[in-house]
Amino acid sequence: MSHNTFGHLFRVTTWGESHGPAMGCIVDGTPPGIALSEGDIQHWLDKRKPGTSRFVTQRREPDAVKILSGVFGDEDTAGQVTTGTPIALHIDNVDARSRDYEGIKDKFRPGHADYAYFIKYGVRDYRGGGRQSARETAARVAAGGIARKILDQLVPGGVRIRGALIQLGKHTIDRKKWDWAQTEQNPFWSPDASVVPGWEAYLDDLRKAGSSCGAVIELVAEGAPAGLGAPVYGKLDAELASALMSINAVKGVEIGAGFAAAALSGEENADEMRMKDGKPFFLSNGAGGILGGISTGQDIVARFAVKPTSSILAPRKTITRSGEETEIQTTGRHDPCVGIRAVPVGEAMMACVLADHLLRHRAQCG
Amino acid sequence: MSHNTFGHLFRVTTWGESHGPAMGCIVDGTPPGIALSEGDIQHWLDKRKPGTSRFVTQRREPDAVKILSGVFGDEDTAGQVTTGTPIALHIDNVDARSRDYEGIKDKFRPGHADYAYFIKYGVRDYRGGGRQSARETAARVAAGGIARKILDQLVPGGVRIRGALIQLGKHTIDRKKWDWAQTEQNPFWSPDASVVPGWEAYLDDLRKAGSSCGAVIELVAEGAPAGLGAPVYGKLDAELASALMSINAVKGVEIGAGFAAAALSGEENADEMRMKDGKPFFLSNGAGGILGGISTGQDIVARFAVKPTSSILAPRKTITRSGEETEIQTTGRHDPCVGIRAVPVGEAMMACVLADHLLRHRAQCG
Amino acid sequence: MSHNTFGHLFRVTTWGESHGPAMGCIVDGTPPGIALSEGDIQHWLDKRKPGTSRFVTQRREPDAVKILSGVFGDEDTAGQVTTGTPIALHIDNVDARSRDYEGIKDKFRPGHADYAYFIKYGVRDYRGGGRQSARETAARVAAGGIARKILDQLVPGGVRIRGALIQLGKHTIDRKKWDWAQTEQNPFWSPDASVVPGWEAYLDDLRKAGSSCGAVIELVAEGAPAGLGAPVYGKLDAELASALMSINAVKGVEIGAGFAAAALSGEENADEMRMKDGKPFFLSNGAGGILGGISTGQDIVARFAVKPTSSILAPRKTITRSGEETEIQTTGRHDPCVGIRAVPVGEAMMACVLADHLLRHRAQCG
Amino acid sequence: MSHNTFGHLFRVTTWGESHGPAMGCIVDGTPPGIALSEGDIQHWLDKRKPGTSRFVTQRREPDAVKILSGVFGDEDTAGQVTTGTPIALHIDNVDARSRDYEGIKDKFRPGHADYAYFIKYGVRDYRGGGRQSARETAARVAAGGIARKILDQLVPGGVRIRGALIQLGKHTIDRKKWDWAQTEQNPFWSPDASVVPGWEAYLDDLRKAGSSCGAVIELVAEGAPAGLGAPVYGKLDAELASALMSINAVKGVEIGAGFAAAALSGEENADEMRMKDGKPFFLSNGAGGILGGISTGQDIVARFAVKPTSSILAPRKTITRSGEETEIQTTGRHDPCVGIRAVPVGEAMMACVLADHLLRHRAQCG
Repeated sequence: MSHNTFGHLFRVTTWGESHGPAMGCIVDGTPPGIALSEGDIQHWLDKRKPGTSRFVTQRREPDAVKILSGVFGDEDTAGQVTTGTPIALHIDNVDARSRDYEGIKDKFRPGHADYAYFIKYGVRDYRGGGRQSARETAARVAAGGIARKILDQLVPGGVRIRGALIQLGKHTIDRKKWDWAQTEQNPFWSPDASVVPGWEAYLDDLRKAGSSCGAVIELVAEGAPAGLGAPVYGKLDAELASALMSINAVKGVEIGAGFAAAALSGEENADEMRMKDGKPFFLSNGAGGILGGISTGQDIVARFAVKPTSSILAPRKTITRSGEETEIQTTGRHDPCVGIRAVPVGEAMMACVLADHLLRHRAQCG
Repeated sequence: MSHNTFGHLFRVTTWGESHGPAMGCIVDGTPPGIALSEGDIQHWLDKRKPGTSRFVTQRREPDAVKILSGVFGDEDTAGQVTTGTPIALHIDNVDARSRDYEGIKDKFRPGHADYAYFIKYGVRDYRGGGRQSARETAARVAAGGIARKILDQLVPGGVRIRGALIQLGKHTIDRKKWDWAQTEQNPFWSPDASVVPGWEAYLDDLRKAGSSCGAVIELVAEGAPAGLGAPVYGKLDAELASALMSINAVKGVEIGAGFAAAALSGEENADEMRMKDGKPFFLSNGAGGILGGISTGQDIVARFAVKPTSSILAPRKTITRSGEETEIQTTGRHDPCVGIRAVPVGEAMMACVLADHLLRHRAQCG
Repeated sequence: MSHNTFGHLFRVTTWGESHGPAMGCIVDGTPPGIALSEGDIQHWLDKRKPGTSRFVTQRREPDAVKILSGVFGDEDTAGQVTTGTPIALHIDNVDARSRDYEGIKDKFRPGHADYAYFIKYGVRDYRGGGRQSARETAARVAAGGIARKILDQLVPGGVRIRGALIQLGKHTIDRKKWDWAQTEQNPFWSPDASVVPGWEAYLDDLRKAGSSCGAVIELVAEGAPAGLGAPVYGKLDAELASALMSINAVKGVEIGAGFAAAALSGEENADEMRMKDGKPFFLSNGAGGILGGISTGQDIVARFAVKPTSSILAPRKTITRSGEETEIQTTGRHDPCVGIRAVPVGEAMMACVLADHLLRHRAQCG
Repeated sequence: MSHNTFGHLFRVTTWGESHGPAMGCIVDGTPPGIALSEGDIQHWLDKRKPGTSRFVTQRREPDAVKILSGVFGDEDTAGQVTTGTPIALHIDNVDARSRDYEGIKDKFRPGHADYAYFIKYGVRDYRGGGRQSARETAARVAAGGIARKILDQLVPGGVRIRGALIQLGKHTIDRKKWDWAQTEQNPFWSPDASVVPGWEAYLDDLRKAGSSCGAVIELVAEGAPAGLGAPVYGKLDAELASALMSINAVKGVEIGAGFAAAALSGEENADEMRMKDGKPFFLSNGAGGILGGISTGQDIVARFAVKPTSSILAPRKTITRSGEETEIQTTGRHDPCVGIRAVPVGEAMMACVLADHLLRHRAQCG
C-alpha cells in the first residue's frame, strides 16, 4: 500500500477532494476478458450513495460513474470486456456547498483530521474535508465492483461478499435472528429485523440532537478458495486489517473470534477438522477462515468498528490555525452514523483484497 | 508490504525456517550515520528470546545476532555507524529438535497454519512449523532494534515505545494500577503488579494441563512527532494494523478507543483541543494519537489480541494429508501463552512502522 | 515501476487509449506548497502536441489539460499550490478517427505491438493502437510539468532539463555547432541550425513516399544536485534507462560516453577532479554526471534511439488474427519520424526520474 | 526496483560489502516445487568467480554458496525443492586485503563511485569499494541460477540464456563466425574464435601497462514465450534496460537493432510476419523479440556496453575528502576489463527479469 494506492497486483489508486470538480480512481492489473459495464459498478455505488434515507447525509450526489478506459467492445450488447489496461473511473461532484465550510476554515474540528493534515502539509483544502472526506470511499466502492467481477469470473462458483451492521451505538443485534435477506430491507443493513424500529427511534433522536454514534460492521466472504494469502507480511488477514483500518473513522479490526479469542482456551480455539464428501471441512470457524495468513476455504469473517461522526452540533473546545483557543460548532450536512454507509465500503475493500490475493496466488502457485 | 517484506522506505525482508540452519533479515533504507552496534539489537532480542521463564517455551536459543553488512567503523570504540547500505542480520538456530515433529508431518494441527500452507504450496517444511513458526519474529525484533535507533537519532527527544500485557486469558488488569516500571519486573510484562501472583498460578495450571490461553497487549509510543502517516491508504493506523495483524496468532487490532468507540457519543469521541505553553494539546486521547491516518503528537496507542497457542496436549480431531480422519496430540516445546513473547514483537513492529513513516514524511514534507 | 505506474515517491500512473473519450494520469507524492497552475503543465504539452508542423501527425488534438484534484487556492491570482494529495490530470481526446482502423482490426502491423498485445491479452482496442499508441506520452509530458516545478522549487538554483535531436535517420549534427537556442527555432529540435534545410528536404521526401525514419535524442539536465540516486538497483542511470526505454519505439539508451565508452582506455574514461572556488569539479564528463548510480553534480547526459515509425504506406507481409498470410498497408495519420515528438517526452521522463530521486534522497539522507 | 531489490514478483534483495565478512541475497516469490540444489547455483557462480584466468582479478574467492532457507527435502537424493518461502543465499568473503586500500581512504578515485557515495552518505566503507564493488554481482549471479530453474521448469521446452563478448576495447568480432560453442572455450566468452589470440595479446599488453579497456556484451534468450512484459512502464525492454544498466560500469543498453535502428527506413525496420507449421514467425528480428514492451516469441536480444575499469596504475588528478587537490594511483587486484566477468552477470539479470515477468504474466493472464 502506498499513499493513495492499495493492492499489489489488483491496484487501485484514488484521487479527488470532497468539493473538487470530480473524483475517481484508476484500477490497474485487471485480467483481460472480464465482462464489465458501467452498470456493474453503478449497482454498488447506489448502495453507498448519500441521500438514500433520513439516516445518512442529505448531500445529493448521483455518484454516476463513467468508465474512461480499459474496456473494449459494445456496451449495449453486453459485449464489453476488460482489455488488461488500466481502467479509469470518473465520478462528478455535483452538490458541494463549499460556503458551509467558510466558518471553520481556520479552526480545527475535534475528532477530525483537520489538525493532522495542517501540521503535516501546512496547507489543506478545508471545503468538506477535502481529501480527508469519506466521500473518497465512493472510488473504493467503484473499484470493488470490478474486484467482484474478477472474483466471479475467475473463481468457480463465484465469491459472495456481504456486510451487515451488528452494532449501532450501544445497541447490538441478536445473532440468532441473523437473516442476510433482512440487510437489504432496512436502512441500517441490520441482519436482525427485530432491532430496526428501536434503531430508527434511537438515530432519529441523535440526529435531532445534532449528536452522532458509532457502529460495528461484520463482513463475510463465501466461496473464497483455500490458499489465498501469503505468509509473514503479505498475510490475507494483515492486508484485510490494513484495508479496513484505512476506511475513514475505523478504530478497530478483527478476524474470526477476534479480541474474544484472548479469553478462549487452546481447546476452544483450535477449529477441528473432518472430511465430508471427500473434502476437508472444519467443525468451527474461530479462525474466521484464515490460518497463518492463508485462507482455508471456510467463510472469511472480519469485523470493524467505526467511531461516531465527529461533526456534531454541540460546541466543542478547539484552537485556531494561529494557536488561539476557541469553540467550534459544526454545521453542514453529515451522516449521524458514518458506520451505515461504511457497510458497502467494507465489502468493497474485502473484494479488492481478495481479488489482489487471487492474482498473487496465480503468480506464485499457478 | 510484500510477502516477506514490510515497510516502504525502512524495509525489512526476513527469511528462515524454525528448524533451518539460521534465520535473519535484511534492513534496507536506514539513513547513514546512525550509531549501531550488535549490542543495540541484542538488547531487544534478549527480551523476546525463549527460555527466560517457565511460562515460555523451553527451547534454548541464545538468539545471538550478527551484523554482516551495512555498518562501518570501529565497534569497540562505539564508532560504528550505518552507511546507508543494506544491513544483513544473521541469527543461528542452535536448539532445533526436528524429531519431535516426525509424528505430525502428515497430519494437520488444528488452529495451526499446517493445512493452509499445504493447500497453498503443496509442500512445506513441517519441522517446528517451518516458516509459519513464531520463531520468525526474532528477525522482526532485531529489525525493530534498528528502527528504534533511527527514531532516537532523528526525532528530537527520541521516541519511547513500550508494550504491556493487559489481559491474560480471561484475566484483565486494573488500569488504575498501571505502572510501566512493573512491566520489567514480572514474566508477563504486566503493568499491574497486583495481578502477577494470580497469573502465575493460572498459567502454571494451564501449562501442567497441557492447555493454553490468549492475551491482549497494549503498545504506547511516546514522543512520535505530529504529521507522520499519510491519507487514505498509507495511513499510520492502517499500517500499524497490518504490522500487528501480521504477527503470529493475532486476531484483532485496535487504535485508541478501538472497538469501544462504537458505543461512544460524538461528544465523547471528539478529543477537544487547548493550548499549553504555546503548543496545542488534547484534553483526551480517544483517537490513540492518530486522526485521518496522521499522528497528532499525542501518545500513539494500539492494542492487539493473541489467540491461545494451538499446540496443546489434548487430542483433537483432524485429517491427514491424504484425507483420512484422525486425531492429533501435539508434543514438543511450546509457549503456553504466545502472547507473552508477543510483547517485544509488537513493540518492534510499532518501531518499524514509525521509522518507515518518519522517512516517508521527510521525503514528501522535508 | 509497475505496469502503468512509474516512480517510487513521485509516482505517475497513466491511463487511456488513443481513441477512448479521454486520457490522463494521477501524480502522487508531490510535496505540498508547490505553486502549480494548468498553464505550467500546458506549456510542455504544447511542445509535444500533434499538428505543430508538417513533419508530425496531422491529428488535431488541443491536448488541453485539466487539473481535477490535489491543488488548492486561487488560480487567477497564482495562489494555487499543491496540497500533497494526488493530482489528477485529464485530457480529452477530440479528433479520433476510428474508421481509419477498421481495415486493420484483424491484421497485425509489422513493427507494431499489435501481435504482442493480442497474444498477451487475447483482446485489444485496435483503434489508433489503443493503449500501445504514443498518444499515451501526453500524460507523461503533463506529469513532467509537475516534476519540473518540484525540481525548481526544491533545488536551489533550479534544474534545467533540455533535449535535442542529434540524429535524423542517417543524418547527424555537428556537435561543434551546438546551440541550445536553436532547438526552439526549428521543427526538429535540432541544436545545429545548419542541418535544418537538409533535414526538411529529407523528411518531406520520406513523408511523400509514405516511408519513415528513426532518430537519436540527447537529454541534458543542468543543476541537478550531487547525491541523487542509489546504489545497486535504484541507480539513477538504471532508472533513467528504464524510463527512456519505456517510451514508444525506443531501442537504445546510453549515459555519458555510452557505447563509445567500450572503446576508451581506462585513462580516457576516468574523469579527473580538481577544485575551483572551493568546490569540486571534473575535467571531463564521460560519466554523464552519474557514478555508481549516484549523481555527481555534473550535467546529467543521456541519449536514446527511436526506431522508424512502423506505419508506412509500402505493403508489408503479415498475418491475420486467424493465422492467414496476407499483406498490410497502413493508412491514417502518422508521424514520419516519431523521434521528433519524443524530445519533450524524453525531457519529461528525465524530470520525473530526477524528482523521484530528489524525494528519495530526502527520505534517507535528510 | 527499490534501492537494493530488483524484481516485482520474483524479488531479489542483495546485501554485502566487498570486504565485509560475507555477502548474499534473499530471493522471494519463487514458486513452490522447483527442484533446487546448491550445485544448481554454484554452476553459474563458477563462471563469474575471480581468478579463472590471467585476464581477471587475482583475488581468490571460492564464492561457495550456501542455501539457508526456502528449500525442503533431501539434497543428496536430489529431492530438494523450493517451498515458496524466501530463499536466503550466503557467500563468505575469504580473500579481502583491506590494507591495499588504506592509501586511498581519503582520496576519490576518478571514474569510481567514491565521490558520489561520500557526497550522498557522508560515510562509506572504502575497503575494496564497499557496496559499490562489482563483488555485489556474485549475489545477482546466484539469484540468476534460481531464475533459470524457474524458467526451465515452468516454460515448456525451457528458456536458454547465453551471453557473448562481441567487442573488447576497440576490437570487434566477425558476426559471420559466430559460434556459441566457442564462448565456453576462451577466457573472453568470445563467440568468434579467430579473434582470441589477438585479444589475448591486446589484454596482456594492457594489463602489464596497468591500463584497462571496456567491452560490449550481447545476450540472447531463446525459448521465452510470447506475451511476457507489460505495456507502458512495466515493459520487458524497459526492465531489461534497468537491470543491465544497474550492473557496475555499464553505460549503454540496447534491444534488437538498438541505436542502429535510428538509421533504418520504416520498411527495413518492420519485421514482416509469415506462418510456418501453423505458427506465426518473423522474417527478421530487428525488434530483438520485443514489441510494445511485450515478447513476441522470437529470440530476445540485448546488448550492453561496459566502460574501462577505473582502477589503473597511471597517476590521475583527484581531490581528497577535505577538498585538497592531489594525485592518485590505484594499486590492489583488479580486472583489466570488467566486461569479461560481466557476461555471466548480464545473463543472470536477463534470467531474473524473464522469471519475474513470467510470474507477472501468470498473475494477470492466467
